Amino acid sequence: MSNTMKAVVKTHAGPGAEMRQVPIPRIGPRDVLIKVRATSICGTDLHIFKWDPWSAGRIHPPIIMGHELSGEIVDVGKDVTSVRVGDFVSAESHIVCGVCDLCRTGNGHICRNTQIIGVDRDGCFAEYIALPAENAWIDPPDMPAEIAALQENFGNAVHAALATPVVGRKVLMTGCGPVGLMAILVARAAGARAIYVTDVSEYRLNLAKQLGATIAIDPTRENTQKIIFDVTNGEGVDVLLEMSGAPSAIRDGFDVLKKGGAAALLGLPSKPFEFDLGNLVIMKGITVFGIAGRKLWDTWYAARGLQRGGAVDLTPIVTHKFKLDDFEKALETMASGNSGKVVMFP
Amino acid sequence: MSNTMKAVVKTHAGPGAEMRQVPIPRIGPRDVLIKVRATSICGTDLHIFKWDPWSAGRIHPPIIMGHELSGEIVDVGKDVTSVRVGDFVSAESHIVCGVCDLCRTGNGHICRNTQIIGVDRDGCFAEYIALPAENAWIDPPDMPAEIAALQENFGNAVHAALATPVVGRKVLMTGCGPVGLMAILVARAAGARAIYVTDVSEYRLNLAKQLGATIAIDPTRENTQKIIFDVTNGEGVDVLLEMSGAPSAIRDGFDVLKKGGAAALLGLPSKPFEFDLGNLVIMKGITVFGIAGRKLWDTWYAARGLQRGGAVDLTPIVTHKFKLDDFEKALETMASGNSGKVVMFP
Amino acid sequence: MSNTMKAVVKTHAGPGAEMRQVPIPRIGPRDVLIKVRATSICGTDLHIFKWDPWSAGRIHPPIIMGHELSGEIVDVGKDVTSVRVGDFVSAESHIVCGVCDLCRTGNGHICRNTQIIGVDRDGCFAEYIALPAENAWIDPPDMPAEIAALQENFGNAVHAALATPVVGRKVLMTGCGPVGLMAILVARAAGARAIYVTDVSEYRLNLAKQLGATIAIDPTRENTQKIIFDVTNGEGVDVLLEMSGAPSAIRDGFDVLKKGGAAALLGLPSKPFEFDLGNLVIMKGITVFGIAGRKLWDTWYAARGLQRGGAVDLTPIVTHKFKLDDFEKALETMASGNSGKVVMFP
Amino acid sequence: MSNTMKAVVKTHAGPGAEMRQVPIPRIGPRDVLIKVRATSICGTDLHIFKWDPWSAGRIHPPIIMGHELSGEIVDVGKDVTSVRVGDFVSAESHIVCGVCDLCRTGNGHICRNTQIIGVDRDGCFAEYIALPAENAWIDPPDMPAEIAALQENFGNAVHAALATPVVGRKVLMTGCGPVGLMAILVARAAGARAIYVTDVSEYRLNLAKQLGATIAIDPTRENTQKIIFDVTNGEGVDVLLEMSGAPSAIRDGFDVLKKGGAAALLGLPSKPFEFDLGNLVIMKGITVFGIAGRKLWDTWYAARGLQRGGAVDLTPIVTHKFKLDDFEKALETMASGNSGKVVMFP
Repeated sequence: MSNTMKAVVKTHAGPGAEMRQVPIPRIGPRDVLIKVRATSICGTDLHIFKWDPWSAGRIHPPIIMGHELSGEIVDVGKDVTSVRVGDFVSAESHIVCGVCDLCRTGNGHICRNTQIIGVDRDGCFAEYIALPAENAWIDPPDMPAEIAALQENFGNAVHAALATPVVGRKVLMTGCGPVGLMAILVARAAGARAIYVTDVSEYRLNLAKQLGATIAIDPTRENTQKIIFDVTNGEGVDVLLEMSGAPSAIRDGFDVLKKGGAAALLGLPSKPFEFDLGNLVIMKGITVFGIAGRKLWDTWYAARGLQRGGAVDLTPIVTHKFKLDDFEKALETMASGNSGKVVMFP
Repeated sequence: MSNTMKAVVKTHAGPGAEMRQVPIPRIGPRDVLIKVRATSICGTDLHIFKWDPWSAGRIHPPIIMGHELSGEIVDVGKDVTSVRVGDFVSAESHIVCGVCDLCRTGNGHICRNTQIIGVDRDGCFAEYIALPAENAWIDPPDMPAEIAALQENFGNAVHAALATPVVGRKVLMTGCGPVGLMAILVARAAGARAIYVTDVSEYRLNLAKQLGATIAIDPTRENTQKIIFDVTNGEGVDVLLEMSGAPSAIRDGFDVLKKGGAAALLGLPSKPFEFDLGNLVIMKGITVFGIAGRKLWDTWYAARGLQRGGAVDLTPIVTHKFKLDDFEKALETMASGNSGKVVMFP
Repeated sequence: MSNTMKAVVKTHAGPGAEMRQVPIPRIGPRDVLIKVRATSICGTDLHIFKWDPWSAGRIHPPIIMGHELSGEIVDVGKDVTSVRVGDFVSAESHIVCGVCDLCRTGNGHICRNTQIIGVDRDGCFAEYIALPAENAWIDPPDMPAEIAALQENFGNAVHAALATPVVGRKVLMTGCGPVGLMAILVARAAGARAIYVTDVSEYRLNLAKQLGATIAIDPTRENTQKIIFDVTNGEGVDVLLEMSGAPSAIRDGFDVLKKGGAAALLGLPSKPFEFDLGNLVIMKGITVFGIAGRKLWDTWYAARGLQRGGAVDLTPIVTHKFKLDDFEKALETMASGNSGKVVMFP
Repeated sequence: MSNTMKAVVKTHAGPGAEMRQVPIPRIGPRDVLIKVRATSICGTDLHIFKWDPWSAGRIHPPIIMGHELSGEIVDVGKDVTSVRVGDFVSAESHIVCGVCDLCRTGNGHICRNTQIIGVDRDGCFAEYIALPAENAWIDPPDMPAEIAALQENFGNAVHAALATPVVGRKVLMTGCGPVGLMAILVARAAGARAIYVTDVSEYRLNLAKQLGATIAIDPTRENTQKIIFDVTNGEGVDVLLEMSGAPSAIRDGFDVLKKGGAAALLGLPSKPFEFDLGNLVIMKGITVFGIAGRKLWDTWYAARGLQRGGAVDLTPIVTHKFKLDDFEKALETMASGNSGKVVMFP
């Protein structure tokens, strides 16, 4: 094994990133070294690549990008007992402290001291990555590498779609990006009566329909409220899954949400916006769940159960594959809106 | 319309029942008269027919038997606004008071003053039945009469199977009578990772497998515990659905239930039995849900959603059909254990 | 008994109201006639009196004002069985349909067909009021009339304060109007670790402190965020009870709410406002409960339990008493901000 | 500091224990060394001292007894960051693995690999104890040592009493041992409407009344069912807290539990017994919570909140204090039934 590896490095504060040869990371006594087999692209990676205001405030270059991966454990620290060399794993991207009040009460996913790989420390757009052993999630050996790489992001979809029961209920999902597309699979697997979806990309609306969406609406061309009230006999939906972060989608979603209904919000608005909290939430007796990350490790267990039981198959979610060397093309593809999940192979 | 109708009447305190010509019931201002199109048989009907100790203590003959039905509303009282003549309906069999503390706090299914049709007042093994309008549940006109008749009993299955989340989880269901068989469909529709089942009838185990059971175990010939621990890597199951009422099945079920797991108990043991509450429930941190009836009307909405969304199809549950005139043959078939649901047509 | 009675009537679309002599209402077969013993004033009554935009859109004069009352049942319709002449009662002000999907699934408090007394039909600022029997809530005979009149509004406080567990937790309550003041009593009774409150009225902050608030903050003179973070070691509060409807209070409240915390929102903002849903709710993994009315009848049972067990004493909440004839003075007192609850006696 | 310390050692498989001089334990890199300031006695300690069948099957002498303690951290391993020398702490007695499926999903209290101090490894009836740093719970410096020692056991009471909401509800608690006594304080602090209790010890019934029990019943002299139904107008109680493990108390408790009610079971029956699961749990729609240990660390936070907010004061729970040298007298006192909590000081 050589001492260096290829890695996509954000070298400076500004747009872009470079493929560099860098040292293979060293591991501490409770860490593992993972040889990356596949790594997928998240919207956050795009923000960092393009250097949006959020990135400028959070990222300290130089840093290796990427936080979604699968790979093989090739080395373990001396105190590691939970995994072994040779294990095929996905990774939880949030490295948490384990001792704050949130970690100690089942809220590790919003730990006060979270470090995210590819954001706060070196990530996985590389041949290797070092991680705390507890962040490694053992996958079945027969899971394809590109599916294993999706597990972290799939966890977001599972977290959101299971935040409130959908079984037998009518669901509106606003936003069909990769997390939204996976949430369709989860809601369908969990027994939703109907899954109405909205998005502005025809590509994604088509994909949504193939994945089981009952009705796919383009709000730039159709009237979401009219359609939803029509198909629900004027009652509206029981559950809103908000994946877009777009103020208009959020407003439409709450508007057609039945009184007493529940909304799980995952999409992040880019800034504060005018919202009718009184009429859309309070008077209607709505319950709202803010969804951040994945529950440690309840979400991971649920995600595994959904897949191993055959209720969810993520294969159609991966629409594009690239070599890591072609990371710029891969990021472009992701940015186009005409893709599901984009996976790269080192 | 004649003034009399055919009805299966429990004429006296003792085994048996007779087909009689009786007056068509009259309705009050808030009642409806339903022309029965199909009526299905429940285990309780068998107990009443055979006159077991429970029946002897509860039933006051003469009484028309039966509590599962579908039919058409042919008359409504003057104060009825929620349904109309011509509506095709199923019926909630529990007539509740609406004013006791339980009714007033979402527990109408265990109302202090419940009257059950076919048990405490005249039932539906007949050409007509009178019911409070609020007990009528409007079905879609395209639902087959025999499926509509199953809705009440299907509600038991829905109530039990959704008492605790099964999505992504491993479930053991002990007892594959009709309610158990329907619970397989619900658990599968709700995203269970695996549904292991036990029963002593080969007929029902085969039917269970056809309906989606992962493994079907006959505890008289196989070791339930060994099998379950083997297929779960020694971990046991997350959820127990107990549908048999058999002490040995209950014990086996709790034995293979994971610490921190949940059990929904619907099957009624015939009498008190020796149970290791300390080791099987307390030390393991188990949550147990006693399941009686159907939640009014949450369960009915969930049941509708599961069927209208296509997640559950009850067609294969109806294995035998009879004319109401052949009620004795129908009851025998049900008693044999070699059936799913048995439906009769007046 | 005369055929007419005194009543405070909103006679026309515009500010003001008049004391009139009007017919005593007649009752239907399922109604009761209540002789009002005490009636209290709600913020809504002020809006109607002053004729704000909401009132102009909702109220159809002439109508008798008022929806909080206690009184004695003096007549019952022929079908009434749940209460009797002579019963001392409070009243649920929401008259619900009982048959819509919301009523049928435990959400009667947000029934699709709600009629509110004093808003959509004649109210209780009068000597008598007719109501459906099911809206009458029997009080213990030893409960003072002015306390019994508060039960409906107390229900709002109970609904909000018990929406999420406060036991052992730090609570921030923004807004110390009468509902807020009563919510202090509930949160304290339910074992809150600390109850920090904010308001802009010195009178109400003082009353809040007397009722058990840990710290009372005037955000026009003090920095809410600094104070809360200081007293919570930088952690923030576990629970937010929002009773003011003021955008600045809502923002401050969410700002100091701990990640993973819960907010119950009852105060109604007068219009949409700019809100940072992304940073204040989604990223923090917050759960938000919109609170409307009172759960039928869970909230009423909880309210009774809190009072009968001695955990809550509403006596200090009633700060002013008037004859009904002095309704204009009573409304002025309520409008001043220098009061707790104002009660009138016909 | 000397190299040895006093410790109460279970020296052999059989009744009794001896005060011995033993080496002060050594700590690993993630451990702390605690100088014990107070240690309290649990029923389990009595079982081990007397060598009952459970002890014979579980305990491997020689072992230092005891698992409830408070003390000062006097040394920390090199990797410890969560606590410091000088911190005053209580201790969670369950040392858990952190990596099993139960630990990873919020069920660490029932970890598959739990080691309990004083049971599976050396305990705290000694001058010093070594523990993983994560088992140390920092107390406020002003908390008396004997109160701090009670925290672990108080956690059992908190876990049970908060398993289901008691606010505004009628509670029956069967069994007034120390955990039961503390549960009275918790239920009262959490707003219970009434707390009826049963026990066979007059001493403990009197103590229960002083701590706030509404009615204290001796079932050997009084009819529990008659009394409970009388004081609840025939309705029964909303919540059962079972702390005795006595089959007759368990049966009585479920018998007077309202339909739809909830039971938290903590007391361990000594063996399986005949139980009417059908009539007492299933038909009544009861929810049962098995309570083991304390939730890590939700229960500890709740316990702290209840005390720091002033809602619970454990002072009256400590009825007897001894020097550790007098451990045999202390154990006798505990065994007599005429005590609350017994604390020893090294």
